Amino acid sequence: MPRLRLTIGYDGRPFIGWQSQPGGNTVQDHLERAIARVLKTEAGAVRVHGSGRTDAGVHALAQTAHFDAPDSARLPADAWVRALNVCLPASIRVFACEPVAADFHARYDAAGKTYRYRIHTGPVLPPHEAGLAWHLPKPLDDNLIAEACAALEGTHDFASFAAFRGNEDGTEDTVRTIHAITPDRDGELLTITFHGTGFLYKMVRLLTGAIIRRAAGKEPPEWIPALLRRDFPEKKCQHVAPADGLWLVAVEYGISLPTDGKNG
Amino acid sequence: MPRLRLTIGYDGRPFIGWQSQPGGNTVQDHLERAIARVLKTEAGAVRVHGSGRTDAGVHALAQTAHFDAPDSARLPADAWVRALNVCLPASIRVFACEPVAADFHARYDAAGKTYRYRIHTGPVLPPHEAGLAWHLPKPLDDNLIAEACAALEGTHDFASFAAFRGNEDGTEDTVRTIHAITPDRDGELLTITFHGTGFLYKMVRLLTGAIIRRAAGKEPPEWIPALLRRDFPEKKCQHVAPADGLWLVAVEYGISLPTDGKNG
Repeated sequence: MPRLRLTIGYDGRPFIGWQSQPGGNTVQDHLERAIARVLKTEAGAVRVHGSGRTDAGVHALAQTAHFDAPDSARLPADAWVRALNVCLPASIRVFACEPVAADFHARYDAAGKTYRYRIHTGPVLPPHEAGLAWHLPKPLDDNLIAEACAALEGTHDFASFAAFRGNEDGTEDTVRTIHAITPDRDGELLTITFHGTGFLYKMVRLLTGAIIRRAAGKEPPEWIPALLRRDFPEKKCQHVAPADGLWLVAVEYGISLPTDGKNG
Repeated sequence: MPRLRLTIGYDGRPFIGWQSQPGGNTVQDHLERAIARVLKTEAGAVRVHGSGRTDAGVHALAQTAHFDAPDSARLPADAWVRALNVCLPASIRVFACEPVAADFHARYDAAGKTYRYRIHTGPVLPPHEAGLAWHLPKPLDDNLIAEACAALEGTHDFASFAAFRGNEDGTEDTVRTIHAITPDRDGELLTITFHGTGFLYKMVRLLTGAIIRRAAGKEPPEWIPALLRRDFPEKKCQHVAPADGLWLVAVEYGISLPTDGKNG
């Protein structure tokens, strides 16, 4: 039963997120249906495990996931790329398929993630950017952006920058390490790239909301450090950037390729 | 009755082209409905005149059009930008609105146009490029592309590179001047930019089809010059590139701003 890792890109606009839902219009559902079509089995016979959920409207350049192909499939890993892309809508593409160790797990083995948040600051959002960027036609201070990004880097308890899904028991470890938060300007487009060990639910959108709030001069310099120290735990960050501008750019793993040659 | 010139961008994917159609899902129809909403008149009361049609699926960064605002509107030209964008779908955006002379005509006064054709040559078309580029995952010879582009520049009878809409009487002047055809590579993305005095129906897509045919080594060097000389008039170019990759980038005009100040 070879385990395969997929690298997947998607345009989040048509879908209600990554995670399987009753309506079936999620990226995971489309992938599971495509695998079932390739294998000529019933839909849902093979489950796909992603590196993590993305919300409705969030984009991915390189989401990762794994699944177990039945021995009977006898399809080389790279032939899965072509076969799945034939069955998938054009807004979901499989870029790569690689054999991995039988105990590889797309979520638990993820050692790092990179997200990018795109903000368009021009007076009119170009039509081809609709749904791909947050349209924010107002002055933002680049020095304040840099200061806020630097303040959020490092290892912190990010509980003030997490939304809860309603099924947590409040004991979740909310400490994370962000290696770098890198802002970049290209004309009217501002991008902020977040590279860290992992991110809590809605964390990148809440971090972006806080950075923009500070960059617009709406909060004092001590506001972000106080949120990180949880000086006022009842006052979490209330400013969540919209899903449109969020892109999952990369998921990193340690060494996970099989060494016994049996899964290739 | 001030005449106003609009500069418009659109994502061609949701629309069946520029030109007004009974179904109403064209860029022109959306613009005319938006103007009617701003003026609180019935739809179609004000007609919009574009610089030229674009087909279903063709994109525009800067299409131009003019219309006559009733004197009663009393809306400054730049206020039209905000007002129309509120009424338009996000896939159509008005970037600018300027007063022009009362005899300005978006189509007849156009002195030049620039189109760009986008071709993605990678093995997998990224999901965010679906409908925005021609996916052509095969080897193309850059030297042959450059040679074909150069062969098509200049003043020629482009009858071999024109489709007919069925309402022409065959006497249309098919001589046009292309100032430059400029190919450019950026990784897996090949763009070809066409700058000329004007283009016949489907001409840029037929020129691109011919360039790619030659770049794939499917035709001899003398093929394009022979098509231009109309050596075999029964054999027009049969290779039309898909609408997806075509972008109207700019429309040029001579001096057309009013000098009497009355239309501002």
